[in-house]
Amino acid sequence: MSLCVTFLGTGGAVPTTQRNTSSVFVRREGDRFLFDCGEGTQRQMMRFGTGFAVDEMFVTHLHGDHVLGIPGLLQTMDFNEREAPITLHVPVGTQPDIDRLISATGTDPSFPVHIDPVTDGDVAYEADDYEIRAFETDHDARSVGYVLIEEKRKGRFHRDRAEELGVPVGPKFQQLHAGESVELEDGTVVEPEQVVGDPRPGRRLVYTGDTRPSDRTIEVSENADLLIHDATFAADNAGRAGQTAHTTAARAAELANEAGVKQLALVHVSSRYAGNVSPIEREAREVFEGERAFVPDDGDEIEVPFPE
Amino acid sequence: MSLCVTFLGTGGAVPTTQRNTSSVFVRREGDRFLFDCGEGTQRQMMRFGTGFAVDEMFVTHLHGDHVLGIPGLLQTMDFNEREAPITLHVPVGTQPDIDRLISATGTDPSFPVHIDPVTDGDVAYEADDYEIRAFETDHDARSVGYVLIEEKRKGRFHRDRAEELGVPVGPKFQQLHAGESVELEDGTVVEPEQVVGDPRPGRRLVYTGDTRPSDRTIEVSENADLLIHDATFAADNAGRAGQTAHTTAARAAELANEAGVKQLALVHVSSRYAGNVSPIEREAREVFEGERAFVPDDGDEIEVPFPE
Repeated sequence: MSLCVTFLGTGGAVPTTQRNTSSVFVRREGDRFLFDCGEGTQRQMMRFGTGFAVDEMFVTHLHGDHVLGIPGLLQTMDFNEREAPITLHVPVGTQPDIDRLISATGTDPSFPVHIDPVTDGDVAYEADDYEIRAFETDHDARSVGYVLIEEKRKGRFHRDRAEELGVPVGPKFQQLHAGESVELEDGTVVEPEQVVGDPRPGRRLVYTGDTRPSDRTIEVSENADLLIHDATFAADNAGRAGQTAHTTAARAAELANEAGVKQLALVHVSSRYAGNVSPIEREAREVFEGERAFVPDDGDEIEVPFPE
Repeated sequence: MSLCVTFLGTGGAVPTTQRNTSSVFVRREGDRFLFDCGEGTQRQMMRFGTGFAVDEMFVTHLHGDHVLGIPGLLQTMDFNEREAPITLHVPVGTQPDIDRLISATGTDPSFPVHIDPVTDGDVAYEADDYEIRAFETDHDARSVGYVLIEEKRKGRFHRDRAEELGVPVGPKFQQLHAGESVELEDGTVVEPEQVVGDPRPGRRLVYTGDTRPSDRTIEVSENADLLIHDATFAADNAGRAGQTAHTTAARAAELANEAGVKQLALVHVSSRYAGNVSPIEREAREVFEGERAFVPDDGDEIEVPFPE
C-alpha cells in the first residue's frame, strides 16, 4: 500500500528559482491529493510528472503563496477535459475568498468544484481504511493543518503456527488472516487469534502549512511517520518567526520529538536561505531524535514506510 | 537609446514545462514595463534576471493566463520593501475583477497600487519622447493591446557640410543639432536646416495580447519595428483559432505584411505545439515579407533597433 509524497514547492512566501511556493502532492495507492497550491504549482506538477488526476485539494490558509495556483490549475484541468468533480477543503470562513479568487479571472470549469469548509477535528476526507482530518494551527490567518490517519492493519499471519495446528496451505490461510475461524477435516476449529498477531498501526502523515509551534500539532503528530512542518527560519531569525507566526527549524524539531515523530520534513523555507538551507537542516538535526530530519528539494519524492 | 524586450512567457492558456503563460518585459533605457503577468511570472523574472523594478504594468485582458501572476508579484515587491507606486493599466470595465483578484488572498501592499482603466486610443503612459497607447483588440473578453510609439528623432548632423560652412568644431555643432541657429565669427548665420537632415522616425513596438486578426491591429502596427502577435495555432487548427478568438501564424504574418512590420514575434503558442513549434514558425515565414518572423523561447531577449 504505497504512500508517496512529492514536494512540489518547498519555498516560503517569496519563491526563488530553486524553490516554488507551497504545495505537496500525496499519492496513496490510486488516490491523489494536493495540499496547498501556490502560484506555479501546475507547472511543478508537469515538471515532476505527478499528473493532474487530483481528487481532493486541502488548503491550509488563504495566503497567496498557498492558493494562487488554484485558478490556473482548475483551468488547465478544464482544458484537459476533466469531468470528475473536485473538492477543495478550506478553513471555515474562507469560502468567500476562495470564490473571489476563482471567479476573478472568469475561471468556471465545466466539472463540479465543491468547496468544503473544515475546522479542527473535522474529517475532511474518508476512505475505507484511512481518513484525512483537519486540525487547528496557529498562524496569522484562518488556518488548519491536515493529518492523514490510516486504520490499524491486520496483524501478522504466523504461517508456522498455522501449519503446526494442521491448517492446510491454501484458502484457509486467507480466511484466518481475514478474521474468520476455520474447521479442519478432523473437525478441529482454529480461531484467527491462534495464528494472527495483534493489529499493527497504520501510518500517519501530518502537514501543518504555516504555523507557530503548537500543542495541537504535537497531539495530532503522535508517532507520525512523517511530519511536514513549517520551518521558515533558522535561529538567526527566531524573532521574526514569532512576529510572522512561523516556526524555526529547532522548534519544529523539538515538537516533533515531543510527538515521537519518525521523519521530519522542513518546508516553507524563507528565500533568505535560498542559496544555502544548511542552517535550517543543521539546527533541526542537532535537536531531532527521530530517524531523519531534512529539507526536501522541489521535486523530491519519498515513500512513507509502515512503522513496522 | 536601448529598447529591449524579454519574453517571459510565450505559451498559451495552458503552460508547459518549456513555455510559461503570457508575459513580456520591456526595458526602454531606465524605464521598465511588464505587459501581462500570467501565473509564475515572478519566477520567470528571477530566472531571466529582469529584476522587479517595474514602473507600469499593462494588462491586455483578465483571463487567468494573463493576470494570475499579479497578486504574487505585488506580494514579492512588498516583501522586497518596495515603496514606489505602481500603475496597472487594465481594459475599461475590468477594475472590479482585478480588485477581486488582488484582494482575494489579502494582498495589500504597503506601496500604492493604481488601477488605470484604458480603452482604444488612450495614452496609458507618456514620457518625454515616447508614449504607450491602448488599442482595441478582438478577443472573447474585454481586451486591448498596447503600442509603444517613440517620437521622431533629430535628423542626422552633416558634419562635413557644417565644416564647409565654416562652423568651428565644438559646442556650435550641438546647438545646430538641437535646432538652434548659430552665428559665426564673421557674422554669418548658419541655420540648422543647412546641416541637419530630416527628422528620423522613432521605433514602434506593438503587443496584441490575445486577439483575432483585426484591422485596428494593422493600423497601429504601421511600419512597426516589432509586432508581438497572438499566434496560438497553426493552420491545422484554423477553425479552433476562429472559435476561441485567436489567430493562426499565417494570418498574423499576413496582417504584419499589410502593416509593413519589420519583425514579427509569434507568441501565446498553444501547448499542443509544445514539443515542436516549427509549424507555427514555418507557416508564418512562408507568408511574412518583413525581415524576420520567429517564435521566441521563454527568456529570449531582443534589442529592437532603430529603423535606420
